Amino acid sequence: MSFSESDLAAVSWDGDAVGYVDQRLLPHEVRRERARTVDEIEAAIQTLAVRGAPAIGVFGAYGVALLRDALASDDAFAQAAARVRNARPTAVNLAWAVDRVLGSSDMLAEAKAIHREQIAMDAAIADAGLELIPKNAKILTHCNTGPIATAGGGTALGVIIHAARAGKKPHVFVDETRPLLQGGRLTYFELAQAGVEATLQVDGAAAIAMQRKGIDLVIVGADRIARNGDTANKIGTYGLAVLAAHHGIPFFVAAPRTTFDFSIADGSAIHIEERKAEEVTSFGPTAVAMKDARVYNPAFDVTPGHLVTAFITEYGVIRPPYAESIPALADRPAWRVLA
Amino acid sequence: MSFSESDLAAVSWDGDAVGYVDQRLLPHEVRRERARTVDEIEAAIQTLAVRGAPAIGVFGAYGVALLRDALASDDAFAQAAARVRNARPTAVNLAWAVDRVLGSSDMLAEAKAIHREQIAMDAAIADAGLELIPKNAKILTHCNTGPIATAGGGTALGVIIHAARAGKKPHVFVDETRPLLQGGRLTYFELAQAGVEATLQVDGAAAIAMQRKGIDLVIVGADRIARNGDTANKIGTYGLAVLAAHHGIPFFVAAPRTTFDFSIADGSAIHIEERKAEEVTSFGPTAVAMKDARVYNPAFDVTPGHLVTAFITEYGVIRPPYAESIPALADRPAWRVLA
Repeated sequence: MSFSESDLAAVSWDGDAVGYVDQRLLPHEVRRERARTVDEIEAAIQTLAVRGAPAIGVFGAYGVALLRDALASDDAFAQAAARVRNARPTAVNLAWAVDRVLGSSDMLAEAKAIHREQIAMDAAIADAGLELIPKNAKILTHCNTGPIATAGGGTALGVIIHAARAGKKPHVFVDETRPLLQGGRLTYFELAQAGVEATLQVDGAAAIAMQRKGIDLVIVGADRIARNGDTANKIGTYGLAVLAAHHGIPFFVAAPRTTFDFSIADGSAIHIEERKAEEVTSFGPTAVAMKDARVYNPAFDVTPGHLVTAFITEYGVIRPPYAESIPALADRPAWRVLA
Repeated sequence: MSFSESDLAAVSWDGDAVGYVDQRLLPHEVRRERARTVDEIEAAIQTLAVRGAPAIGVFGAYGVALLRDALASDDAFAQAAARVRNARPTAVNLAWAVDRVLGSSDMLAEAKAIHREQIAMDAAIADAGLELIPKNAKILTHCNTGPIATAGGGTALGVIIHAARAGKKPHVFVDETRPLLQGGRLTYFELAQAGVEATLQVDGAAAIAMQRKGIDLVIVGADRIARNGDTANKIGTYGLAVLAAHHGIPFFVAAPRTTFDFSIADGSAIHIEERKAEEVTSFGPTAVAMKDARVYNPAFDVTPGHLVTAFITEYGVIRPPYAESIPALADRPAWRVLA
């Protein structure tokens, strides 16, 4: 089945509500929902119906603008805005976006600006990446970094979809990305919707795909990047980077400047969140291991910068030596879109 | 819960039936079944209630011996034996074991000899591997190679369990092994039953485990080994071997001589079976990707021999250069246990 871009928009301003597609139901059902109250906004974030750090930021920004109009009392509004801001404490974009809206005289205009900037930033990343994608490229990717995760065009997946629209005919090998299967559930679906040829595989098949399927490059997103290029991203990314190096395949990371943490010298400062065992011991209603199994379930890993061929940002492609090129990125002017 | 070895025996001779534990129900339920007719024997193999190539061989051997007594007509018996022999055409051990029983004057004695040899062979592999396991070793393994897969003590897992019984206190990191999750369902369970400390992880966490958890060695089993050491094994194994080399960690393959195919010079002669998409797109009743997704689902990959530190066999540890040591293995006398 084929859906329109507005059916699938991660976040939409609907006038009297913040619209979103319930990502928990994808790819089996495309259901748009409308959040109008602080309870509904908070729940959409907390239940992961809206996920992806940039998408949550845009959603929270619209949410706070909506609540400002709905709540007459300043106290009630302040409490509601705080609930939205803290709905997922680890998503940096959410607090940043809510604070930016709260500090503005026209909250809705500011929320719309944040959304427009996200779209423009993703488009600039996609443009910057175009030169790195050969015609008919076989590309391997991991996790989900598409429009649904950013409320824009996506990061790594944005580069790929843009290259497809530019006639490069890429074929994408999609890691399913255990434990939460964002690749199988979301990335494959987004590529199918965009008309990009794709093949789904278990994470353990990445090595044989590189060995036998002629993978030309790997592109992934990032959660946090240190000053030396060490990159925290979804669990499994580090292994892919080692495999890419072993096979002589370029390994690219697509991410906006906001993902770079210029305050940390290297990845040793990045805390690796360990998540609950149930993500590994069960899947949906199906238990797949002993319920009391001891589990190692790190959400992220850290890829050493020397394994990253280049970073694709809205300021262009950043290449080694990262000790020079990444600090230089910090000095670039802030990215803003005029209202 | 703790079960006895006989509760968990992959195959048992029960006098008037061939007993087995239904592996499809593990680890949630330990249920012993008794196969008495050709229909029951064939079904147990075809439905994967009994799995693991050596275990299927032992099961089929007992099955044919049982049917010889049950079926008066030579024609009926020949047909029944052929059905058992062909219940899973890809499992080499099954046809080999059935043929050996059929060629014997005392079929039950021959089936028992096959079973005893399997147990003795696994024990010899475990003994040979002992010197490779340091005290308090952190060991990473993939898929299931335990007692349940061989109807003996197991191959790679047999080495680990033997080392634990010898007081070496290993801690095992178990890859869940998508798509069929033999690690999560069977290996973790077998280690828990044996009282060996274990930690379950998604396959994508193997790299960070090597980087941060102090993994000392990797041990896996094998499906087929070429004359130069190229090793076909469960999908994901090749990636592990590359990661182990990158981290300077020894990578061992435990397998009996029957797994070596002395007729092929290298892994290029090994056909990689591709299995159905549903193994990746759904799990139990839960669909985890678009139903019509295009899927790459190779059952095995081939690890180049130069990434294998050593092979652990019932004839001892086989080290490089494999071009000499593996052909020498072909010349060793056949392994037989006296009745």
